[in-house]
Formats: sequence, C-alpha cells, structure tokens
Amino acid sequence: MAHRPSHRLPKIPEMTIRRLSVYTRCLLQLEEDGIKTISSQDLADRFNLNSAQVRKDLAYFGEFGVRGIGYYVSGLKAELQRILGLDREWPVALVGFGNLGSALFHYRGFGRQGFRIAVIVDDDAGKVGRDVDRVPIVATRDVAGEIRTREIQIAILAVPAESAQAVTDQLVAAGIKALLNFAPTRLRVPKDVRLKNVDLSIELETLSFYLAKSLK
Amino acid sequence: MAHRPSHRLPKIPEMTIRRLSVYTRCLLQLEEDGIKTISSQDLADRFNLNSAQVRKDLAYFGEFGVRGIGYYVSGLKAELQRILGLDREWPVALVGFGNLGSALFHYRGFGRQGFRIAVIVDDDAGKVGRDVDRVPIVATRDVAGEIRTREIQIAILAVPAESAQAVTDQLVAAGIKALLNFAPTRLRVPKDVRLKNVDLSIELETLSFYLAKSLK
Repeated sequence: MAHRPSHRLPKIPEMTIRRLSVYTRCLLQLEEDGIKTISSQDLADRFNLNSAQVRKDLAYFGEFGVRGIGYYVSGLKAELQRILGLDREWPVALVGFGNLGSALFHYRGFGRQGFRIAVIVDDDAGKVGRDVDRVPIVATRDVAGEIRTREIQIAILAVPAESAQAVTDQLVAAGIKALLNFAPTRLRVPKDVRLKNVDLSIELETLSFYLAKSLK
Repeated sequence: MAHRPSHRLPKIPEMTIRRLSVYTRCLLQLEEDGIKTISSQDLADRFNLNSAQVRKDLAYFGEFGVRGIGYYVSGLKAELQRILGLDREWPVALVGFGNLGSALFHYRGFGRQGFRIAVIVDDDAGKVGRDVDRVPIVATRDVAGEIRTREIQIAILAVPAESAQAVTDQLVAAGIKALLNFAPTRLRVPKDVRLKNVDLSIELETLSFYLAKSLK
C-alpha cells in the first residue's frame, strides 16, 4: 500500500479523523466475525455508513482498496490504528477525581484503545497520596514532575469550570500537548496544544431532533 | 423564511444534525457578543468550520441566508433550536446513579439545552426512595409508571454493561423512544426507538492522531 509522505498531507477535516475511529471499530467487529475482505459498499451497508464518504476519507491517507477484492479487513484496521496513533500506548493524566473523574477512570473504552491513565491529579487532602488500582493521586503542585517523569502528553480534564483554566495553564507549562476537556467552559491554550471539548448535550440533541420530527 | 414541509425532507445525515448543534452554539456565542448578522464565510472563519458545509447542512431545512446580509444571528439560532427540538423542555430518565450517573446528573450542559432529568432509576436499596435536588430515585420495577406519568421519552443509560440490555428492554416496554447509551455494549432496540451510543474514547483518538502525526 502506497502512502503519501506525511509532510505532503493536505489539511484533514476533524470529522474525517472521527470517522476513521468509527471505521476502525467496524473493522475490529468484522475481524471478530471472521471476515477477511470487504468492499466499501458492503462496509457502508453493514454499518450504515456512506460508501463515497468512506472512500474519500481513506483517500487522504493512501490507496487501500484492491480492485476486485475491496479492503483487507485486518490490514486496513492496522493501517488506521497506526494513522490514529493507536499502535502504541499513551500514558494519560486524569485531572479531577470527583464523580466524573472517577467514572472516566473506570471507563473501559480508554484502556482498550491504548490510553492508560498513569496519574490522577486532585487537590482533595483526603485523596492525595492514595493509589487507585495502583495509579497514584497527586496534588496539582506536583503535577509537573509526574508529567515529565512519565512522559505524559495527554490530559483529561474533569474539574469544575471555575478551576479549569488555572489547572490547564499548569498542565501546559508542564508539557501537556493535548487536552480532552469535560469542564463546561472555554479554555485558552497555546497554538501547539490540541484542545478537544466534549459537550455531552450534543448527543442528546441528535435524539431530540428525531423525536421533535416525529411529533410534527 | 420558506421551509419545505417535513414529510418532504430528504434523509438527513446524522453528522448534519450534529453540526446543527454546533452551529447553534456558535450562534449563541455571536448573540452574546452582540453580533446581529454574519455571512457563512465569517461564521466559518470564526469557528473553524467549512462554509460550503454550513450552507449545505442548512439547505436541508430551507433558505436561511439573505443576499448581501448573510444570516440573522438570533433568527437562525431560533430556527435551528426549533429544528433540533430545543424550543421545548424534554423530561429525561437517568438510569444508573453510580459515579457516571451522578456526574451526568450534575452536568450543567443538559439543563441549559432544555433536557431536565425528571427521574433517576437505580436499584440500590440505599438510594431508592431518596431525592436528589428534588428529583426522585425509583427502582427499576417502578420505572414504567414514572415514565408514563411524567411523559418521558428520553433515557440516559449509565448502568454497567451487564445490566444494560435488561433495563433497556424495560424502558422500551414502558414507552421510551430515545436512548443515550454510555454503557460500553451493543444494545438491541426496536426500529422505532432511536439509540445513540456514546464512545468517549473516540474523542481521545482525534487527539492521539494529531500527536502521532507530529511525532513523524
């Protein structure tokens, strides 16, 4: 499979990246079901995708289809995992260990994709110094050392909106390069830091759209 | 503004619905900033969107732009809210009141968009019969009555994977028409029930993509 060298990659829409994650899950499912090859049309039909979109999304990264065969399921899955950076383990800092932080810590999906929570950050005196499943809880003032020692580049932010910017500034100063923010607030980060805000109410709105439509 | 009657609407991609939610948030922000009108290009530039995509997404629902002016911010926001069903309140059942359920209960974003948690469902004997901020906690065996009395159509599922299907079957039997599922498992629902699975690791994968790319 021929790939364009990465310095020649065009700007890739974030929705394309998101869909690559979805395709990876579909391919994992096909692999589990024992399917070796699949056409883009069958892939689309089976998982309710758009086959033209699948081809267009993949075309950003190379030519993966084989004429008369389609895609090799395991090969394409491995390629997509490599593109998404899922062919390695990413140590992650989980910042905030309240209800949401605790729920995210136990969320099985992260570990399955190679994201390993390596340190928990919380300033609650009753929590600092404890371990949870052998992961240490440290105070914010000690976060810089932990991030450097453990070579952590990704942080998940599950703190209240009020403290989110202050802790973000400390995380960025300590070398964090990517932030997944659950705090319902707009954060400022330098240009070389990727910020992704999770807005859980968007998911509910796709549901209310269909309900509202069916009422009309 | 002219609208096609809803029975003539073409099949609308789910990504379009998702983006309508995003546009609504952008328009709310513009409104807060005192901006009255905006072109699709300025809207796109300001929020890092694709202007052709914005126009295409909106075109499913009507003609919202005015030549030489662009969009009326407040008017378009109100139209999108109506389309998304956000011009009314939706009572919601929150099923599971562990760490994740508790975090979701306190998540401010839901209420802001008109989703009001009207009942909590949990079978823990220490929780049943209690109130949380005046919202009652009921056992699964009593869920049907609550759903009917309160005319609830939407449920948020925050239970362990093992119990997700059984409780889903009961919710559907009681009249739930839309499910937001946080349990990491595939659920079976009848065709007339909308199911939306939230996979939090997809968000992390868009981050690892950019980190992996910058390493190459």
